[in-house]
Amino acid sequence: MPSVRLAMAQTNPVVGDISGNLAQTIAIVDEAVLNGANLVVFGEMNLTGYPIEDLAARMSFIEAAEAAVTQLAEVLQAPKYLNIAVVVGHPSKATKSNGWSLAQNSATAIVSGKIIGRYSKHHLPNYSVFDEFRNFVPGDSLLTFEFQGLRFSTLICEDIWQSGGPVAELKDAATDVALILNGSPFEVSKTDARLKLVQELSKRHSCASAYVNLVGGQDDLVFDGNSFFIDQDGNVIARARQFDSDLTYVDISDGTFISISPSARKISDSIPEQDNRDEFAEIWGALVLGLRDYVEKNAFSSVVLGLSGGIDSAVCAVLASDAIGPDRVFGVSMPSKYSSGHSRSDAQDLAERIGCHYRTEAIEGMVDSFESQLRLDGLASENLQARMRGVILMALSNTEGHLTLTTGNKTELAVGYSTIYGDSVGGFAPIKDVEKSLVWKLAEWRNAKALEMGLTPPIPENSITKPPSAELRPDQLDQDSLPEYELLDRLLDAYVERRLGRDQLIAEGFEATIVDRIIALVDRAEWKRRQGAIGPKITGMAFGRDRRLPITNKFR
Amino acid sequence: MPSVRLAMAQTNPVVGDISGNLAQTIAIVDEAVLNGANLVVFGEMNLTGYPIEDLAARMSFIEAAEAAVTQLAEVLQAPKYLNIAVVVGHPSKATKSNGWSLAQNSATAIVSGKIIGRYSKHHLPNYSVFDEFRNFVPGDSLLTFEFQGLRFSTLICEDIWQSGGPVAELKDAATDVALILNGSPFEVSKTDARLKLVQELSKRHSCASAYVNLVGGQDDLVFDGNSFFIDQDGNVIARARQFDSDLTYVDISDGTFISISPSARKISDSIPEQDNRDEFAEIWGALVLGLRDYVEKNAFSSVVLGLSGGIDSAVCAVLASDAIGPDRVFGVSMPSKYSSGHSRSDAQDLAERIGCHYRTEAIEGMVDSFESQLRLDGLASENLQARMRGVILMALSNTEGHLTLTTGNKTELAVGYSTIYGDSVGGFAPIKDVEKSLVWKLAEWRNAKALEMGLTPPIPENSITKPPSAELRPDQLDQDSLPEYELLDRLLDAYVERRLGRDQLIAEGFEATIVDRIIALVDRAEWKRRQGAIGPKITGMAFGRDRRLPITNKFR
Repeated sequence: MPSVRLAMAQTNPVVGDISGNLAQTIAIVDEAVLNGANLVVFGEMNLTGYPIEDLAARMSFIEAAEAAVTQLAEVLQAPKYLNIAVVVGHPSKATKSNGWSLAQNSATAIVSGKIIGRYSKHHLPNYSVFDEFRNFVPGDSLLTFEFQGLRFSTLICEDIWQSGGPVAELKDAATDVALILNGSPFEVSKTDARLKLVQELSKRHSCASAYVNLVGGQDDLVFDGNSFFIDQDGNVIARARQFDSDLTYVDISDGTFISISPSARKISDSIPEQDNRDEFAEIWGALVLGLRDYVEKNAFSSVVLGLSGGIDSAVCAVLASDAIGPDRVFGVSMPSKYSSGHSRSDAQDLAERIGCHYRTEAIEGMVDSFESQLRLDGLASENLQARMRGVILMALSNTEGHLTLTTGNKTELAVGYSTIYGDSVGGFAPIKDVEKSLVWKLAEWRNAKALEMGLTPPIPENSITKPPSAELRPDQLDQDSLPEYELLDRLLDAYVERRLGRDQLIAEGFEATIVDRIIALVDRAEWKRRQGAIGPKITGMAFGRDRRLPITNKFR
Repeated sequence: MPSVRLAMAQTNPVVGDISGNLAQTIAIVDEAVLNGANLVVFGEMNLTGYPIEDLAARMSFIEAAEAAVTQLAEVLQAPKYLNIAVVVGHPSKATKSNGWSLAQNSATAIVSGKIIGRYSKHHLPNYSVFDEFRNFVPGDSLLTFEFQGLRFSTLICEDIWQSGGPVAELKDAATDVALILNGSPFEVSKTDARLKLVQELSKRHSCASAYVNLVGGQDDLVFDGNSFFIDQDGNVIARARQFDSDLTYVDISDGTFISISPSARKISDSIPEQDNRDEFAEIWGALVLGLRDYVEKNAFSSVVLGLSGGIDSAVCAVLASDAIGPDRVFGVSMPSKYSSGHSRSDAQDLAERIGCHYRTEAIEGMVDSFESQLRLDGLASENLQARMRGVILMALSNTEGHLTLTTGNKTELAVGYSTIYGDSVGGFAPIKDVEKSLVWKLAEWRNAKALEMGLTPPIPENSITKPPSAELRPDQLDQDSLPEYELLDRLLDAYVERRLGRDQLIAEGFEATIVDRIIALVDRAEWKRRQGAIGPKITGMAFGRDRRLPITNKFR
């Protein structure tokens, strides 16, 4: 009989649904106990969901979170939880305000229904998408507790990414196992970074580490789960699923750690090792989860989107179909007089392949009635067509209750190659952080995946191979007004993600005229991006709260 | 002959226009020197504009700012600047990165063209609209320099709002005059707070204080100027203009301070004392400046807006006319079959009173062509009308180059009483932070002001007195679906600005059913607000970066 069976509870809480999250927490503890666990550790702020943003400054919210902790402790006083330890994450009332924030980002340890200690996050990330220095008062001491003859220390997320602070105290505290509660959002290749970091940490401080992450979409963030357990020599003992809830068990006895997988659960170590992971599969998984959770957590019955026959709307439709099933996806073809024959047939072909709802609403009559009254041409006429389509989608959303998806990709958003209040309308943008070159690669990957599984590739080949066009005037092609996407995406990566200036871009080999044109486009489109829908972040620099720039800005 | 003639340079820089701001700085120094000044102090980050947000993380930007300081020092090496001291604000390269930020928020003192010292802001505000802990590395020491036998210490904005840090060193440094560079945005009644704070500070640390603020609109912030000089006994020696650039002089000799006003400038002390200030005049001034600077700094030739005959669009049109002149304001009446006769006549009356451009574009034909194809009714039909108007305004913007103004007020934004991609379209929202009750008061104030000056009141009396209606269905009134605005605004103030929870709201005397309904409306409208235009902040809690809440949020 091992002294401790640790359960790493990788859950998907809903921000603000404190009673729901509490019920979920209790249910998971019950399942873990049923499987013989006596220590259950959850992710960061699992009781309230994460990130709570400025809810941290609402006293009624913090008090509700504190009440949930008390209630949980009361539940855990029942005899069946005797000698059961539970560590949960939640915001707590700060004893001292920093003048704005009244809360801390905390973890509470409960043993046999008794609260035995609380830890508050020391390092508050305030970069990228994080505003924790805004929202929280930092904690200042490590929590170490003894349980079944072993010593456990709690840490929260960013604490392990900084060498000073509580991490430095792990060894002095004679920590056997560090319990690390995380709310770490997905980014391409971040999984590797987390693993390496914790391996180093475990070796340096001579302790094992249970890294428990949240899973699930929350607005523009996707928590990918992927929790793991590392022993004091840096060996990976157990790994949880990516993009799904999981409960992963490790038996701890006499300094040895054994991963066990009760039959009730899918075996955690069936997940391939990181090195063998497929980057496109990871990205696809993140996009699907982000979209699914936005739909489900906001209680939408279905989604509607325009199907142009192009690659972006095709990928979005397949993502939606993978996320919530094709019967909840409503595609609309909205041809104009400039629409090619293939744009209609490719859209219909796509809808048939995935089995989603499909209808056609021609915009010509509406466009004509507008144009004749307002005498529009040129850009105004192009924008008008996109806006008519936006009005149709929003009318269907109003009438039938769908969430409208906007299908713009990151490259378009960057250079403002879209019509505000036109193709940009919608509550969620599934591929907002996916550059155009990657959209194609994902489409090919998804089709290949289907073939591999003996299924019909969902995306019509023609949508992948034809030259991209907005079809807002005769024979229009994207490349009439933009550089080739491959070049453009490299330039945007350098300017947006790597934040290089004009001279550095030219020094990297980009042509000065192209640099000047593209920089100007990106900067001028800031006001449009500011009014854009949210969508799942998958890169190190997503548009949105990851990149906060003034609209009024003359720096080039 | 006084030993020091101090010039407080209250300038209006443009964010990112480093060469333009540098030229402005040199021109102001020249004017001050011509008027006998030998010490010229500017506002926070006057060389780059403020706030620069994530431009702080772009190395090319920080280097350009540093180069501007060097260039300024070179210019000031000319013989005519001998014994002239200049203190300018700018971001500087941090010697140590905090892992994200590479910059500090600095002030550099230059005497006779020689850089004699640099101070970096110690307290970095990271609450409300500020993200300075994100963007900057804090400084850690006071800069005190001797000039003409007096000792000057520099501080930057937030530093004086916190009792610890550099402020505590003022006395030990034997400071005669604290030079405080500020980028302090306007908020109702904040002027008083600043003044009292600096009076206390001056008395406590036995030094005089030159409080130099920026002036001008920058996206959603309005810097109101209002710089002042306080002696060591807390007396107000000089005050600069509010909402306009100014150059205010104080002669310092033998511990006495005398405000002087060279003939070249409007006399600063003609500004009424704070106690006599008119709150409505202040708010109006802030809204006008915010709108004007958004238009001018982004180089728009003109604005377009829908004129419904209602109070919101009337107030926006008058603000625009006051900001940039009526000949640059284009009003459009867009009647539907539900529009009352007075909505057209009131709109036309308004346009005639202010002398702006005016045209009528009926939406009935376009709405019919849509409704017949899509078979819409109810909310979808109401939204359709608003969206047709949005499409018209954006078409006019595309064709004629106007900035589109959206005329929603804060109360509507709060409860989501607007149509996204409909009446919400536009790049700037002039009364976004003005609650409905205040819109009426401002209208009455503005009309009274006109009468006082012997001019025609710009806003038709009928627009002020008639019951508010969106006119999207027959005989519709706002109060059919919302509580009386006076009650609603009090409730919203308690929920949004004071961040009270449900129980606290009920304890304050609001009816539970109304509380539940309004809270739900506010929370559900978060996604719409997220996609809304920016507009000038005038309260302590504006929608936008002042209030950051999750969209996916089940807390009620």
